[in-house]
Amino acid sequence: MSAASAVPSPAAPPPPPGTFEILARDATTGARAGRLWTAHGVVETPVFMPVGTQATVKSLAPWELEAMDCRIILANTYHLALRPGAEAVAAMGGLHAFESWNRAILTDSGGFQVFSLSDLRKISDEGVRFRSHLDGTELFMGPRESMKVQRLLASDIAMAFDECPPCPCGKDVAEKAVARTIAWAEICAGEPRAEGQLRFGIVQGGVHADLRRACAEAVCAMEGFDGFAIGGVSVGEPEELILPGVEMAAPFLPEDRPRYLMGVGQFWQMSESVARGVDMFDCVMPTRLSRHGSVFTREGRYNLKNAANRLSDRPLEEGCACPACQRFTRAYVRHLVQAREILGVRLVTTHNIFRYLETMKEMRQSILDGTFGAFRARIAAAYGPGATTNLLR
Amino acid sequence: MSAASAVPSPAAPPPPPGTFEILARDATTGARAGRLWTAHGVVETPVFMPVGTQATVKSLAPWELEAMDCRIILANTYHLALRPGAEAVAAMGGLHAFESWNRAILTDSGGFQVFSLSDLRKISDEGVRFRSHLDGTELFMGPRESMKVQRLLASDIAMAFDECPPCPCGKDVAEKAVARTIAWAEICAGEPRAEGQLRFGIVQGGVHADLRRACAEAVCAMEGFDGFAIGGVSVGEPEELILPGVEMAAPFLPEDRPRYLMGVGQFWQMSESVARGVDMFDCVMPTRLSRHGSVFTREGRYNLKNAANRLSDRPLEEGCACPACQRFTRAYVRHLVQAREILGVRLVTTHNIFRYLETMKEMRQSILDGTFGAFRARIAAAYGPGATTNLLR
Repeated sequence: MSAASAVPSPAAPPPPPGTFEILARDATTGARAGRLWTAHGVVETPVFMPVGTQATVKSLAPWELEAMDCRIILANTYHLALRPGAEAVAAMGGLHAFESWNRAILTDSGGFQVFSLSDLRKISDEGVRFRSHLDGTELFMGPRESMKVQRLLASDIAMAFDECPPCPCGKDVAEKAVARTIAWAEICAGEPRAEGQLRFGIVQGGVHADLRRACAEAVCAMEGFDGFAIGGVSVGEPEELILPGVEMAAPFLPEDRPRYLMGVGQFWQMSESVARGVDMFDCVMPTRLSRHGSVFTREGRYNLKNAANRLSDRPLEEGCACPACQRFTRAYVRHLVQAREILGVRLVTTHNIFRYLETMKEMRQSILDGTFGAFRARIAAAYGPGATTNLLR
Repeated sequence: MSAASAVPSPAAPPPPPGTFEILARDATTGARAGRLWTAHGVVETPVFMPVGTQATVKSLAPWELEAMDCRIILANTYHLALRPGAEAVAAMGGLHAFESWNRAILTDSGGFQVFSLSDLRKISDEGVRFRSHLDGTELFMGPRESMKVQRLLASDIAMAFDECPPCPCGKDVAEKAVARTIAWAEICAGEPRAEGQLRFGIVQGGVHADLRRACAEAVCAMEGFDGFAIGGVSVGEPEELILPGVEMAAPFLPEDRPRYLMGVGQFWQMSESVARGVDMFDCVMPTRLSRHGSVFTREGRYNLKNAANRLSDRPLEEGCACPACQRFTRAYVRHLVQAREILGVRLVTTHNIFRYLETMKEMRQSILDGTFGAFRARIAAAYGPGATTNLLR
């Protein structure tokens, strides 16, 4: 009986949402391969979550993401609260029904956008009064409002509402933001949730190790969080401060819970963060850069607009199994990008998201196989500091 | 043997390109159902050809058009000659290989765009010297140049280079344009073609019955054309002059050759033109209006942006089998259009092109079934003069 019970029968119900299993750990780094169960399926970690700000991963249809085995996408609370409005999404059956996506969705808290996109009016201990960047409407969002919006959206993972100051900022500003983030986390943790919805706490603290640790310890001590995020790490600081930010926070997050590094998504940053114990990532980079003709490959990134690609009959990436590479030449996709045709954006985005998801699968498999060190070295060579192809640096 | 030979064996080669079979004629109108064989498959007529100006039907991938059973698309010679250039397309194996479309392609002559889009420099009996609307480069296009570009593109159907004056214009201008169109047609008819490429002559003459007839008789008397087009009928004239333009030309085009009405593509205009003997159509309307949220249905056209659709859980059109209607609500697609998301354009375009192709299939089937009269009446009710849903009028 014991051998049989170790293998779940096909009819066994899935583990409850929030179950996080660590299947393998790298011997020499903090990297781990796991899986996180949600109300809309299982997410294999480490994972990259494509960003679907306005309830769509820009230019892609959901069946295209499904065909790539994408298991989780992100949506932005701030944008959806403004348009079409959380109540409208709820009236349409929640975000999954609205955008016809039956897999996992993580919503951010809206905090980052309130601070970065809106015409900021006034921040208080209750939240933020701001003007919509769309039409100037005056609105208010605090921890209760954010949790309510995310409850109406009915995402699988809701994020606590935090204060995310830009970098650089004085230590007094960072200190104040940490205090508010902790107080707001406490409120968020006590708010009702949508059915099966998980909730993640967020650690702020900027570039200050003592603030990061204090914030992590305070938030992780609260009841009611299923995972924890490192926030305020891709908010204008120089590249050199990103990994230190991870190092200041990750060691103080519980081992048995998923760790999510918000807004970070360069390949090298991700492999290095995974080595430091991070499991989840999101970033607009692969979708945003697609619109400018940037193509990610195993060997590095290149600009499709380069004249060298004008008559190239090669696919975007040799040996790639994505739908764009299976059918089109660089010459054609370059023409579409130059002519600003929608199909150009679609094809480059298709390839880039495919490459991102494949890279994360390879990363995960390397942890399972005990070859993460070699994987990490390959990514560093193609995308790390000094890699000539890493045009973004 | 005679019974067996009437049914071609599966291994029989297709008829040579240019073969045009008329399978049925309507008893009381000039409508006919046929099929036109090209080097890239058979086209069932009456047919609507989606416009793929820059070697892409805007926002759609070729597999999406294939899935809709689209058999022929159009590409614009002027745009492709400017970017990426006819030689570049030829170097990539011709337009079919370039855009990965293995079905039929019709290219226009470039004449219409040279006259309407470019910074016009000088028109002579040899052709037109003009400046590119992209970068101001001075270029020349006449009948020989147009046929050469279309030969390099290697389309299935090339159009003769014509002079297409705007409407209104004086009769002297129309007369001069007809003279040039005839002279240029003579040159085009003598130019070499790509392998298997068909060539259509064009009838001009504006709103003048005598000029239309003279032009038709002259062009149709020439050797070397596989079909004939009515041009200069959607170039600024009031709606009431479109069908008269067809009536002035169609009777003088040979019965046994396909007839193509260029640039006309409202449903009612098409059914009325089919009643007058036309077989082929193209129009940017279904792709262009998609970008503004206009949805074509069996019952008429509506604007998705209307507030009434904000919380609608209906598909774009009830009972529609297109991929957009199979999966998404009006509320969601409307949100995407409002938020200017690419997926919104994709989904509305998908539906509209699907509706166009289905409508043409229904029109063709009604001719085969002897029920074209009822079909024509239904289209007139939904889209004809006085139809409240025909927002374009």
